[in-house]
Amino acid sequence: MMGLGLGDPPADYGSIMAVGLFVALMCICIIVGHLLEENRWMNESTTALLLGLGAGTVILFASSGKNSRLMVFSEDLFFIYLLPPIIFNAGFQVKKKQFFRNFMTITLFAVVGTLISFSIISLGAMGLISRLNIGSLELGDYLALGAIFSATDSVCTLQNFDLGNFSSLKFLQFIGNFLYLFGASTFLGVASGLLSAYVIKKLYFGRHSTDREVAIMMLMAYLSYMLAELLDLSGILTVFFCGIVMSHYTWHNVTESSRVTTKHAFATLSFISETFLFLYVGMDALDIEKWKIVSETYSPMKSIALSSIILALVLVARAAFVFPLSYLSNLTKETPGEKISIRQQVIIWWAGLMRGAVSIALAYNKFAKSGHTQLPSNAIMITSTIIIVLFSTIVFGLLTKPLIRLLIPARHLTREVSALSEPSSPKSFLEQLPGNGPETDLENAVSIRRPTSLRMLLASPTRSVHHYWRKFDNAFMRPVFGGRGFVPFVPGSPTESSVPLLAHGSEN
Amino acid sequence: MMGLGLGDPPADYGSIMAVGLFVALMCICIIVGHLLEENRWMNESTTALLLGLGAGTVILFASSGKNSRLMVFSEDLFFIYLLPPIIFNAGFQVKKKQFFRNFMTITLFAVVGTLISFSIISLGAMGLISRLNIGSLELGDYLALGAIFSATDSVCTLQNFDLGNFSSLKFLQFIGNFLYLFGASTFLGVASGLLSAYVIKKLYFGRHSTDREVAIMMLMAYLSYMLAELLDLSGILTVFFCGIVMSHYTWHNVTESSRVTTKHAFATLSFISETFLFLYVGMDALDIEKWKIVSETYSPMKSIALSSIILALVLVARAAFVFPLSYLSNLTKETPGEKISIRQQVIIWWAGLMRGAVSIALAYNKFAKSGHTQLPSNAIMITSTIIIVLFSTIVFGLLTKPLIRLLIPARHLTREVSALSEPSSPKSFLEQLPGNGPETDLENAVSIRRPTSLRMLLASPTRSVHHYWRKFDNAFMRPVFGGRGFVPFVPGSPTESSVPLLAHGSEN
Repeated sequence: MMGLGLGDPPADYGSIMAVGLFVALMCICIIVGHLLEENRWMNESTTALLLGLGAGTVILFASSGKNSRLMVFSEDLFFIYLLPPIIFNAGFQVKKKQFFRNFMTITLFAVVGTLISFSIISLGAMGLISRLNIGSLELGDYLALGAIFSATDSVCTLQNFDLGNFSSLKFLQFIGNFLYLFGASTFLGVASGLLSAYVIKKLYFGRHSTDREVAIMMLMAYLSYMLAELLDLSGILTVFFCGIVMSHYTWHNVTESSRVTTKHAFATLSFISETFLFLYVGMDALDIEKWKIVSETYSPMKSIALSSIILALVLVARAAFVFPLSYLSNLTKETPGEKISIRQQVIIWWAGLMRGAVSIALAYNKFAKSGHTQLPSNAIMITSTIIIVLFSTIVFGLLTKPLIRLLIPARHLTREVSALSEPSSPKSFLEQLPGNGPETDLENAVSIRRPTSLRMLLASPTRSVHHYWRKFDNAFMRPVFGGRGFVPFVPGSPTESSVPLLAHGSEN
Repeated sequence: MMGLGLGDPPADYGSIMAVGLFVALMCICIIVGHLLEENRWMNESTTALLLGLGAGTVILFASSGKNSRLMVFSEDLFFIYLLPPIIFNAGFQVKKKQFFRNFMTITLFAVVGTLISFSIISLGAMGLISRLNIGSLELGDYLALGAIFSATDSVCTLQNFDLGNFSSLKFLQFIGNFLYLFGASTFLGVASGLLSAYVIKKLYFGRHSTDREVAIMMLMAYLSYMLAELLDLSGILTVFFCGIVMSHYTWHNVTESSRVTTKHAFATLSFISETFLFLYVGMDALDIEKWKIVSETYSPMKSIALSSIILALVLVARAAFVFPLSYLSNLTKETPGEKISIRQQVIIWWAGLMRGAVSIALAYNKFAKSGHTQLPSNAIMITSTIIIVLFSTIVFGLLTKPLIRLLIPARHLTREVSALSEPSSPKSFLEQLPGNGPETDLENAVSIRRPTSLRMLLASPTRSVHHYWRKFDNAFMRPVFGGRGFVPFVPGSPTESSVPLLAHGSEN
């Protein structure tokens, strides 16, 4: 922690002020979000973003320029503190049955989908943006754009490449690296999840305190993320799969109250981080410095052109893999009920269009050093990213509810709407995970509470894979790592009696 | 958050390494602590401290000197992130019945007790330490010592005084300031607690999500702390009373699952912060820089002399108010059962002797700028503080279990022992709150799970005050702010049915 320079300069009025302000804004967000729940346009993310923009404006006027320093975007804050709880919770709340049943489809979307959209955006950027002659952009920058907006965590490994002279050989190298990354990160996440299940099953922390169990689950999940980052793997993938494994095994090895606590505590932490993030992005968008540099060098038209081009590429690239891959996966299904309907495909396509904080973080990570940008061509990349994030989150975000209302049969309508204004609504983070795999599960995480269209999608079974997995799980995994029905009953130890409570609790 | 400079320099290998290392160490702490639970000497705090010392040694040897920079003690990290959850949880878990019944005794200990021990330590330091001629020490430094080791949060307001020329008039001024501080902070805490209760009761967050309720409780508690700090009040007192009010009103206005979640999530966060803190102190103790400065200027004997003098003063000062004040409060009780027995007095005296991270934080706050000390006389003050914290936590800590075994009748023995190794055991933080008031409640927080000698103490009723309070509470407060039995039953809304679960959960 000290390594982050967290806390020096020592607790001064300004820093306490900043934290206090943020906490106050978050409280307002939650209350406003609650009141707007039945609203037909707004959702919690949009509320937070707009509130952040508002607060940013006030601060900017209150102390002109000075506070842009306070508002420097910190990659540490984002990647070390805010992102892990959100992604972990997404994994933890996944409906595992559907996830495993559709594992093939999900993996297809995740791996192939990401590569397709990455290639299209990179190539498209090369072809189109070069015409804008906004200055020295190398091949590496275009590939970075592709990675930022296709946006997968794998971009973090781009840093290992010398982006200066990037050859087609290196491109293949990159694809190989991506596949390795996907596999290794998943493995690490699964391994650490299983370790936590084993430790808790063996030591049975519940014997004395629920707190220890909850603490060890939190810390080991976080450790898996840190470990992945240290090994240059994708922390996001790791912690996501760690969450899945923990909810499949570990969660059943802890006491009743630990189960209730973890279920809601993780969701709350994720909710808080997400709200914080949107406020943060809203405020950071108004950081004057980079806008000044851009406006000094380029015409407003050029900024708009660049943003529109990238946005168009995102729309195309996503369509280019959602519909073909859906078609492919439909070929494997027999009955119409199992197939992904066109409506569902449209929703999957649309749901992933909103770009969020991850894109901004990655843009800073590639185009700026510790939040500062001097080179105009870098500055405009960042400002365009911000424009795209704000536009897609606000405009697309506002259109989402109506769109769903259009596509989903009336009887599901109200459920859909409330699902969309779910606190831990994943909309904003759909693009952060490779392709659509985890995304659909994120959507699904919500559907634990209320069915969504994507749940219907995932409900379509692919017996084969799932069947053998279940056999293996019951025969080898559960006896070792615990899990539902595989933990001997001890007073105060896991019992099914908590399930009604959970269901009951989450319906409120 | 950005104000803290959190995250710049951007996420580098070193910072991720540091965080990862800490998380790993915390996991080990929890597991080792769990295994040592039945051990007759160790407790979780001692384990963490020793582990921290061990890790610090390794790091020091691994990269000689370099890492002392990494280990700079950060007051922000401590006062903004680690302390609030610990103190809030202490208030949240207080047994309110006993607390209100013994409110008078507690306040007496808290206010008068602190002032007595503050005066004795300050005057003693003036008389004795001056003889060691360790260099330029002003009256202000002696008073700071008194405040650090008597140790109340009120020292934070010392900064408002010009400690250079400190007159007896200013001394009275300080006492007045302390009393104002105590009142105002308490009021702020109570007010924000009531606000949260009212907001949740009116909006009834549980209608849609438990997460919102838990989030709003967390954030508003934290906000109260931040507000207190901004107003130069005692954040510790504020958040402590906020915790009490939240558990008395707010907690009864939320859903069943929110109640289970908050109860355990807050305890877990406090547990994690405390473990982190002890590791942190253990590692920081080995920060080479200050030891070098001290050893260059003073003989080892002088350091030892200084530490022993302060430690002796702490022992005396605490005895000087625990026994007389207990005697006074006994005068008000009729039956022997209500009186504080000598054994109980000894435990109260002993329990408060261990000095913890707060003392170190305050020492840095007074004698160092952002963790760095150049002036030898300042450096030795910090090193002596560290010596005292390590000695009292480890040596006194190891003696505590045997002492209690000596004083408590055999039938309570096992309970006592397990109570002492309770994860959220307050031992380490006994001295952080004014005098003994909150301390006894901290101890009591543990006794929610298992009876302790102090619970017996607090069980002795003072009908009068408590009686009228109850009347007022039922007549005016609960109808407005909710609370047990004053929230209409709605499916999924507060019911008593969760109580057995809680009891059951916490007995594990």
